[in-house]
Amino acid sequence: MQRTIKNILFIMFDQLRYDYLSCAGHATLETPNIDRIAAMGVRFSNAYVQSPICGASRMSFYTGRYVHSHGAAWNNFPLKVGEMTLGDHLREIGVETWLVGKTHMKVDQKGMDRLGISSQSIIGARVSECGFDVFERDDGLWAQGPEGFYDSRRSPYNEYLKSKGYEAENPWHDYANSGVEDDGAVASGWFMQHADKPANIREEDSETPYMTGRAIDFMEKMASENSGPWLCHLSYIKPHWPYIVPEPYHAMYGHNQIQPVIRSEAERINPHPVYAAYMDNAIGKAFSRDEVREKVIPAYMGLIKQCDDQIGRLLAYLEQSGRMDDTMIVVTSDHGDYLGDHWLGEKDLFHEQSVKVPLIVCDPSSSADGTRGTVCDALVESIDLAATFVEAEGGKVPDHIIEGRSLMPLLRGETVDDWRDFVISEYDYSASSQAAALNLSPKQARLFMVADGSWKFIHAEGGFRPMLFDLVNDPQELKDLGDDPEYAEIIDLMYERLARWARRASQRTTISDETIVESRGGSRRSGVLLGLYDGTEASPDLTEVYRGRAQGRYTGVDEDAG
Amino acid sequence: MQRTIKNILFIMFDQLRYDYLSCAGHATLETPNIDRIAAMGVRFSNAYVQSPICGASRMSFYTGRYVHSHGAAWNNFPLKVGEMTLGDHLREIGVETWLVGKTHMKVDQKGMDRLGISSQSIIGARVSECGFDVFERDDGLWAQGPEGFYDSRRSPYNEYLKSKGYEAENPWHDYANSGVEDDGAVASGWFMQHADKPANIREEDSETPYMTGRAIDFMEKMASENSGPWLCHLSYIKPHWPYIVPEPYHAMYGHNQIQPVIRSEAERINPHPVYAAYMDNAIGKAFSRDEVREKVIPAYMGLIKQCDDQIGRLLAYLEQSGRMDDTMIVVTSDHGDYLGDHWLGEKDLFHEQSVKVPLIVCDPSSSADGTRGTVCDALVESIDLAATFVEAEGGKVPDHIIEGRSLMPLLRGETVDDWRDFVISEYDYSASSQAAALNLSPKQARLFMVADGSWKFIHAEGGFRPMLFDLVNDPQELKDLGDDPEYAEIIDLMYERLARWARRASQRTTISDETIVESRGGSRRSGVLLGLYDGTEASPDLTEVYRGRAQGRYTGVDEDAG
Repeated sequence: MQRTIKNILFIMFDQLRYDYLSCAGHATLETPNIDRIAAMGVRFSNAYVQSPICGASRMSFYTGRYVHSHGAAWNNFPLKVGEMTLGDHLREIGVETWLVGKTHMKVDQKGMDRLGISSQSIIGARVSECGFDVFERDDGLWAQGPEGFYDSRRSPYNEYLKSKGYEAENPWHDYANSGVEDDGAVASGWFMQHADKPANIREEDSETPYMTGRAIDFMEKMASENSGPWLCHLSYIKPHWPYIVPEPYHAMYGHNQIQPVIRSEAERINPHPVYAAYMDNAIGKAFSRDEVREKVIPAYMGLIKQCDDQIGRLLAYLEQSGRMDDTMIVVTSDHGDYLGDHWLGEKDLFHEQSVKVPLIVCDPSSSADGTRGTVCDALVESIDLAATFVEAEGGKVPDHIIEGRSLMPLLRGETVDDWRDFVISEYDYSASSQAAALNLSPKQARLFMVADGSWKFIHAEGGFRPMLFDLVNDPQELKDLGDDPEYAEIIDLMYERLARWARRASQRTTISDETIVESRGGSRRSGVLLGLYDGTEASPDLTEVYRGRAQGRYTGVDEDAG
Repeated sequence: MQRTIKNILFIMFDQLRYDYLSCAGHATLETPNIDRIAAMGVRFSNAYVQSPICGASRMSFYTGRYVHSHGAAWNNFPLKVGEMTLGDHLREIGVETWLVGKTHMKVDQKGMDRLGISSQSIIGARVSECGFDVFERDDGLWAQGPEGFYDSRRSPYNEYLKSKGYEAENPWHDYANSGVEDDGAVASGWFMQHADKPANIREEDSETPYMTGRAIDFMEKMASENSGPWLCHLSYIKPHWPYIVPEPYHAMYGHNQIQPVIRSEAERINPHPVYAAYMDNAIGKAFSRDEVREKVIPAYMGLIKQCDDQIGRLLAYLEQSGRMDDTMIVVTSDHGDYLGDHWLGEKDLFHEQSVKVPLIVCDPSSSADGTRGTVCDALVESIDLAATFVEAEGGKVPDHIIEGRSLMPLLRGETVDDWRDFVISEYDYSASSQAAALNLSPKQARLFMVADGSWKFIHAEGGFRPMLFDLVNDPQELKDLGDDPEYAEIIDLMYERLARWARRASQRTTISDETIVESRGGSRRSGVLLGLYDGTEASPDLTEVYRGRAQGRYTGVDEDAG
């Protein structure tokens, strides 16, 4: 039987480091279910996100465009009305595009109001959710502080917990993301010393199993409706912080399973000011402490192990329902996690731990049989998925809008001669305490990475020197060569690439390149006759026009009106 | 009496060269009315358009944004839905924003349909007209060819002509833009040999007086309604081609009043390929013929003289109505006209004849009394007007959206230390025959200019060398130094400036810089607690949280969630 792609299951984890999978070489963590997808598909070993931060990275995944193009450059910077998304492109070719989980989308309410788009309308609802129809939106960040909730929406997950008898104002915090003290008090998962406690929740009610269940609910619903093709964006909040996981996962990994930290004392000597500011923040300082790593990393590994088990549950469902044969499966993450490497925690900067992500794509179609289980080291960007999905579903990639490139040729083992030779990532830290500490204006607090497999270059606006790492001789990125004059030529090359990229025509989105080519010379065909003195310059037909009988109408050679 | 700005009369001519005004030094053309505005205000002698082509240039005037930012890079490339315009910014501060004349706006119909915006709604009508309310929209290009009309809308001007008894299918062509042959046939203005004929129309019915009348109608209406402040964009099609003008203007200038052509035989030796392609087109070839210049330039001068007389009529109305005292008057153009200089016709490239425009701003307020009649040589960009208008009307320039800078300090004689040190202009010729001749893809056929008063640098995508002119030693721009290794350092500097500009955060338009600064550290205030091991790292208040009694709520120091 000839297999083809009908549906797409686009699975995103949050803050899953590229090297925390057994198929990616982790020495002590086993992820057999994700590994199985890799064995059925292609694992991309050089996949980079467009920005190492949830919101901006996701907006690039969903639009297929660089952050510099869509402008939603940090968490909760609204994605502007008018930006086209996966949903726009896929619905045009008959593919329903649904969300189950997190997006970190912040609506451009001012833009919607300005254009009179009601969030109650179908169009408005989609614009509000970066193009998805919502089966379930739950960003999984129900933090609460003196200024109120971090996320002002309702939390379906909190409602679920309440329905299951977890009583609290914010059961997300008190049960899923807390342990219990000896005296029975909530041991908040915000405090990393609690990371070794079991979360105060039944495992099956914790976030990852819950969302897996919702994805299965979605697929059941589509099956029961005998639906056409769909894309389901199953988007987990985990293994993102708070770092706490229910039993048995909380106790699966011990100190001896933690991988050696990647950092060097030399990194703290005369560091780049932006890097220094991140090392100096509370997160960097905390993750530089061994006790923090020793508490957090086993919990992080437990969270990933739970994720992998839930992928196993999903795969079982796909097999049992027959969806395995007609569904493209994608597993990726929005960014990584430093976990103390380079004296940093979280993400934000461009070391591989932060900016590189796992990316596994299983194309069920027969034409991909030749690449199953292979690893592809092409330089891939997260924006490539939007293009891939459009092509997988039989559409033509609108390359005047989507800036990524379809991975379909790579998935099908075709030779691609003109693949990109560098990737770009960006980081806008204008809203951060680091920008304040560095005394930078919002327009200055921006970073750009150019990486080509051999070198990684980072330009910082605001008058700083660049950073540079030799990925061949220093794959752990421990030595910043950005101020070494010996590398001036490499730095020049990287600046040239960055400039070329920055000049791209990213906003010419209302007219396709094909239409542009077809329109060449079109002005004259619409009667705009330029450069004619007496008509003899063009064609004999002009005699008539010249005599005035055709009132300027003309069928001559093409020449443009300016 | 203390005078202040209430209204803005934003007058744009089309294809009016910066040096074809007597106040700008034209030796034989007298423009006393425009000169009078210059005497009442400030004339900017280094004003550059963002693109030397109608559509793209205008979209920059109307959005206050570079072409690279708004994407409407050529005539009839639609301005994408969501781009904010003058109208959006001014209405927010209570200023009505009206159009009388041309915009060259092409609606993004697909975008409007996608977002469910009806062009019948007020919002949709404004989006369709780049933010203006329409008193009269008439682009003045009613050309007609085998593929139909260049402009598919109704022409109010053609309807006016019909109502006045000018009978024809397209009276715009047959009367306003044609002469008459000896045998009574229409002598089409498309053929430049007819440029010395009087147009086949009563002078008062020709385009410039017609549109002036419409502007007076507008102001009368606003007065009768006792309106609040308004901006009126009075946008003339002239002195744009077709080059033909009614009597007496057709005969006002003779060959001895034509200024010497600015070109050199050396320019044709080994020219830059893009320049060569433009010299090689029908327009360049035509304007290289003396007979063409001798026919066209007197007509062009006559058209300008007519424009100036109409400005006189407007000024008389402003005085008589009292509007002179409360109305800011701006006179500018969307680009220039080569008229045979540099072996070129039309515009498109970046010689001063094309990219520099007249810009005169008369601020009626008392605080501008000190600068009346002065000339300002600051480097000004057309996007500065949007910022100027917002500030003139008492608003705060939204500098995360509008990329231009307000000219108000310059108009009021204030010292500005950090004024820009270079201007940018762009040209997208992807839809042109020249791009086809050079075998360029649409993404390659783009030019960028960087000019700083001393040097003018042009980068051409597509693998070409740059162009460079020494504006101090070669003010006529006759010698392209772009391939001279002696200027490598200047070229490097210009590339660095271009790169810096290209990296700007042009799409971060949904959040202001002020809001970004205010939000620094905001994640923690919303309860996102990162980098805490046991709470002792922050403040004593945390003890409570640590014990779990506040469910993770926290009032501590600021630190961002990543």
